[in-house]
Amino acid sequence: MPTISTPSKIAGTKSHGANVIFSGSTSVEREAVVAEVVEETGATLVPPYDHPDIILGQGTQALELEEQVERLLELEPALGVPGRKRLDAVIAPIGGGGMLSGICTALLGTGIKVFGAEPRFEGANDAEEGLRQGKRVESVKTLTIADGLRTPVGDIPWSIISDKEKLAGIYSVTEEQIKAALRLAMERAKLFIEPSAAVPLAVMLYNEEFRKLVEREAGEEGWNVGIILSGGNTTMEAIAKLFEAPSKVAERAEGKVTVDGDRIAENVAG
Amino acid sequence: MPTISTPSKIAGTKSHGANVIFSGSTSVEREAVVAEVVEETGATLVPPYDHPDIILGQGTQALELEEQVERLLELEPALGVPGRKRLDAVIAPIGGGGMLSGICTALLGTGIKVFGAEPRFEGANDAEEGLRQGKRVESVKTLTIADGLRTPVGDIPWSIISDKEKLAGIYSVTEEQIKAALRLAMERAKLFIEPSAAVPLAVMLYNEEFRKLVEREAGEEGWNVGIILSGGNTTMEAIAKLFEAPSKVAERAEGKVTVDGDRIAENVAG
Repeated sequence: MPTISTPSKIAGTKSHGANVIFSGSTSVEREAVVAEVVEETGATLVPPYDHPDIILGQGTQALELEEQVERLLELEPALGVPGRKRLDAVIAPIGGGGMLSGICTALLGTGIKVFGAEPRFEGANDAEEGLRQGKRVESVKTLTIADGLRTPVGDIPWSIISDKEKLAGIYSVTEEQIKAALRLAMERAKLFIEPSAAVPLAVMLYNEEFRKLVEREAGEEGWNVGIILSGGNTTMEAIAKLFEAPSKVAERAEGKVTVDGDRIAENVAG
Repeated sequence: MPTISTPSKIAGTKSHGANVIFSGSTSVEREAVVAEVVEETGATLVPPYDHPDIILGQGTQALELEEQVERLLELEPALGVPGRKRLDAVIAPIGGGGMLSGICTALLGTGIKVFGAEPRFEGANDAEEGLRQGKRVESVKTLTIADGLRTPVGDIPWSIISDKEKLAGIYSVTEEQIKAALRLAMERAKLFIEPSAAVPLAVMLYNEEFRKLVEREAGEEGWNVGIILSGGNTTMEAIAKLFEAPSKVAERAEGKVTVDGDRIAENVAG
């Protein structure tokens, strides 16, 4: 794992019995360490997204979601669009693209539309841009708060998501929209998720193009949309940093306020 | 609601269609506003904890928990103590005591032991103290972070929890223990709960007397313990304030550090 990984992710991994070996944070540094470990130990590399088995494995969540939604709407029809007993669409985050391309593969031929959701900050929407240009964007350098989605789309995932039969579209959102969706998920749905996980919810709530598409295709009736919230690798400190009181952020920019709002600079100067 | 209520609690209440009327934060101020509203509108008062119907209603959660645990252990016996197919104990937070006394009432005669969990800060452990003295503590003034548990135990709840047939004991924890349990619930269980909800988990993890009691009564085998996590009324900003980076808290105490670690005082003084 990169040394800058979230402490709770490192602790969680170790708690499952893993021997965690650290690397630098760029993909070049990571791959060098992996090659070394494979060489020394004879370990089998399980790639994070750019492999057919990983894609198929991640796709199984779409099968579970389909089943869960059908069972839920059987029990509580009022939770869905009247008269519709199944999912109409699924929206999932896209970083390397293993999960999204797995979902596309699992749902191909079901009539359920699949959408991807990306952060937009500093070109993090490489998949959306790639689809626009008809060519995979091969490198990305962004510090979006959705840190699980900073990776460019991998080769094999790209071959799947760039197929219009498989993926219905990709939509992106701003940092503020991600924060607002994250707040809603935590404060109201009581789900402790990481910023990356809030990106599809942010698209649903705030992306105007996506809203227009749904209005056009689903009409007045609407769709039953499944939202993939993945994952939950964040810490209290990371959340604290994202949500410090806005007045403090503003005043901090002027360099004259402390955490608890005392104007130390003035006191000292006076 | 008191004007100082958590904004997400106010918003949540309004979103269910409530007409929210505000009061001061002391129980005297609140009761005066309630009396006025009842007088003006002819509304029926539903007391928060000190009424038999409320207690019985809250107690139904214990019946649900019993059922859920039996079903869960049927499906996944490995989640429980080997050979034990049901709950041995339940631990729940106590503020006004409506919920805890409801649980005691619901589980009476089942053999399932019921425990209460309280914050200890500034005498917030009024129920534990009351049991020790054999007399209800009638007023409490504490600023514990477990703000849902600042209330003293009500009269009717006290008549239930002070009955040794009904309640097996009350245990209390420090503010730091509550924070540690809150972190665990959020970072690892992915549950966005308020500090009050983390108090029973903190007792389970950190209260030495409780640990000794379980060792004594349950032996090597242990118990299947159900923990009530109630509730989730907190905000991102409240969580941010609780979990700002420790180095900043320490340095802030010395009055020379800002939110982002710049030493403004020194800069200005220099």
